[in-house]
Amino acid sequence: MTAPSQHDSLADPPADSPAVRPSFDVDRARRETPGTREVTHLNNAGAALAPAVVLETMVGHLQLEAQVGGYEAAAAVGAASEAVYGSVAQLIGAAPHEIALAESATRAWDMAFYAFGLGPDDVVVTGESEYSSNVLAFLHRARRTGATVRLVPNDQAGQIDVAALERTLDELGTRAALVSLTHVPTSNGLVSPAAAVGEVTRRAGVPFLLDACQSVGQLAVDVTTIGCDLLSATGRKYLRAPRGTGFLYVSDRIRDRLDPPFIDLHAAEWVAEDRYTLRDDARRFESWEAGVAARLGLGAAVDYALGWGMDAIEARVGALAARLREQLATVPGVVVRDTGEHRCGIVTFDVAGRDADDVVAQLRRARVNTSVARAASARLDLGRRGVGDVVRASVHYYNTDAELDLLISLLSDLVAGRAG
Amino acid sequence: MTAPSQHDSLADPPADSPAVRPSFDVDRARRETPGTREVTHLNNAGAALAPAVVLETMVGHLQLEAQVGGYEAAAAVGAASEAVYGSVAQLIGAAPHEIALAESATRAWDMAFYAFGLGPDDVVVTGESEYSSNVLAFLHRARRTGATVRLVPNDQAGQIDVAALERTLDELGTRAALVSLTHVPTSNGLVSPAAAVGEVTRRAGVPFLLDACQSVGQLAVDVTTIGCDLLSATGRKYLRAPRGTGFLYVSDRIRDRLDPPFIDLHAAEWVAEDRYTLRDDARRFESWEAGVAARLGLGAAVDYALGWGMDAIEARVGALAARLREQLATVPGVVVRDTGEHRCGIVTFDVAGRDADDVVAQLRRARVNTSVARAASARLDLGRRGVGDVVRASVHYYNTDAELDLLISLLSDLVAGRAG
Repeated sequence: MTAPSQHDSLADPPADSPAVRPSFDVDRARRETPGTREVTHLNNAGAALAPAVVLETMVGHLQLEAQVGGYEAAAAVGAASEAVYGSVAQLIGAAPHEIALAESATRAWDMAFYAFGLGPDDVVVTGESEYSSNVLAFLHRARRTGATVRLVPNDQAGQIDVAALERTLDELGTRAALVSLTHVPTSNGLVSPAAAVGEVTRRAGVPFLLDACQSVGQLAVDVTTIGCDLLSATGRKYLRAPRGTGFLYVSDRIRDRLDPPFIDLHAAEWVAEDRYTLRDDARRFESWEAGVAARLGLGAAVDYALGWGMDAIEARVGALAARLREQLATVPGVVVRDTGEHRCGIVTFDVAGRDADDVVAQLRRARVNTSVARAASARLDLGRRGVGDVVRASVHYYNTDAELDLLISLLSDLVAGRAG
Repeated sequence: MTAPSQHDSLADPPADSPAVRPSFDVDRARRETPGTREVTHLNNAGAALAPAVVLETMVGHLQLEAQVGGYEAAAAVGAASEAVYGSVAQLIGAAPHEIALAESATRAWDMAFYAFGLGPDDVVVTGESEYSSNVLAFLHRARRTGATVRLVPNDQAGQIDVAALERTLDELGTRAALVSLTHVPTSNGLVSPAAAVGEVTRRAGVPFLLDACQSVGQLAVDVTTIGCDLLSATGRKYLRAPRGTGFLYVSDRIRDRLDPPFIDLHAAEWVAEDRYTLRDDARRFESWEAGVAARLGLGAAVDYALGWGMDAIEARVGALAARLREQLATVPGVVVRDTGEHRCGIVTFDVAGRDADDVVAQLRRARVNTSVARAASARLDLGRRGVGDVVRASVHYYNTDAELDLLISLLSDLVAGRAG
């Protein structure tokens, strides 16, 4: 996949060194992102800056709702709402009827995970990079059903040990109810070897739920290449969509084996007083009511990402993050904490003698947005590695070398005691 | 409760006949509601027109997010976000820590209902006005757990027979797991006798879940007066808040007896690798991620409603609806279908020889917004009464006598064959 030709224009001199990404029109990306004029935004793994088109789409629909009524406005944009499914499907290589829209990645993931009918013999298999809320859900469900949780250790590279996973699935046999994997953890720049996991789960015939909350929008994610049966994602992070949006991919092959945790008049048809039938697509995992403006904003953000091309985005984000890791390694007292063989736009590090919260607060004063990944919320990742809270700088394609240089300069000053 | 003095000013001549509501400043309400200049909005039970302050609040926050980042914007409005809980609590007479915010009334209700640990001996008790999605959830849960559903019949007035409910609870004893009641149905102008039901459930010691989706915002709803343990509501309907908002009231006395259907890092604290503790307020029924702009819009809408005063709103809405029912009764071929002793702003009717869809479409051409309540989605209400699809005209305090006259005039023309 390549970016359409209109994105390749380099008529304006690039804001960025040609070495990083010669073919990516960073100037255009920044012109179309009002927030780049206000802040140095390196908190894209929290929530990225929306492009103008996403803001305009949302605001335009909210205004229409206020003018003509919420249902009447929804009817007026019926085709555009429907098109969101097609856009999301295209983004991840699925079919539109395999997509359910959701209020967040958390709720999308919940609708998938809690749809498994677990019993005391069942085992949920996961890894040390699993998102903390997912682990809480495993413990919650284990308490209710008697199911157990099996943690596959990391390999030497600090990512899930795929050979150990395979042995675990062999050993468990039919007791393995599902494999749940977080594609990119919130507390680490690593990219989990999802496709290798998918190969193993397919061979073992075990359902594979991929939490792609931090990967969709920064990596080219394809459900067929990965081989997952379920995938959840959010809008607000790398996709640059509004908060309060997310989606769930439910493959045709798994849909009828799951029981949606909740149903309503949208998910099911009430065919007689005491009988209902579930609808025959992934929307059985949705509810009827939705913030239509937010959904249209999600669609606009996905279309915008597709316009740049996910391969081009992945390459640029990866190159910027690699450059940042190299620069960080030159600052005395700064240690990069990312693990794994393949890394992404998330860069985690700590600064000797400084609390992560303090570092983030100091950077914020210079209008540089970063965030803290907390050890208490990453017990299996940071916790097991013996690392405390870390600073997280997460880059996007609209960031520039100059912004990374600013971060490095501020950190150098901080370490040298010239600020704070 | 009375409207604050600034709302009582009648310096401008009222747009409305003084007979209906002399003290309600309808002109001001309409000035502050841009949509009243565009449409005759009688679809307030679908989604009401937002006041300008709600639109401005949402748009303002979305712009801030695009400028400084989603998390950074959230941090900047932390106090305002927190205040939403206080506003909602004040609206329904609860304490702020008894409020959970949600993405919709459906999801708020789901988080409450699915939190009951049902077994084969348990009985869910409900009435014939119960919202269809709730009934689907009962059937869904019954299929999974073996629990059964008991339907309490209506009385002569067409509302839940409270004496029959009492007998049912006596008979069931500890098998009665909960009573679920829809306060105002979507397909009928009746107001269920919620406080009488609350008296019975309290006496029987059975948990009482009230679906107040259609009542909050048009009626003065107080959880203590009603005596419910749980109450769910939406923002988009009579509260005039954004789509994609809702809330759940969880009384202190029931919170620890329920197990939230989903948990995440916001609902629970991860205290050790294999252990979590639920937070000690109603927010254990929330998820961490939320559309902050929509939540702030909800808060603005609640504050706006409180500014008018819920008693004043209830009186005006009720008076307008009563006037409309009287007028409808004078149109040949039009039959009002509302039941119950106490009625609200929802007015349902059918027109002899005309499909409800056709009537609504004709009215829409004159920029009059109404909607269809479908018999297939109201099997226990319209279905059991032998009524087909009905037209629903739902009034709000910003509607005027002139708008009702327009509706009557259009319907008269329709009946006389002068349109369509």
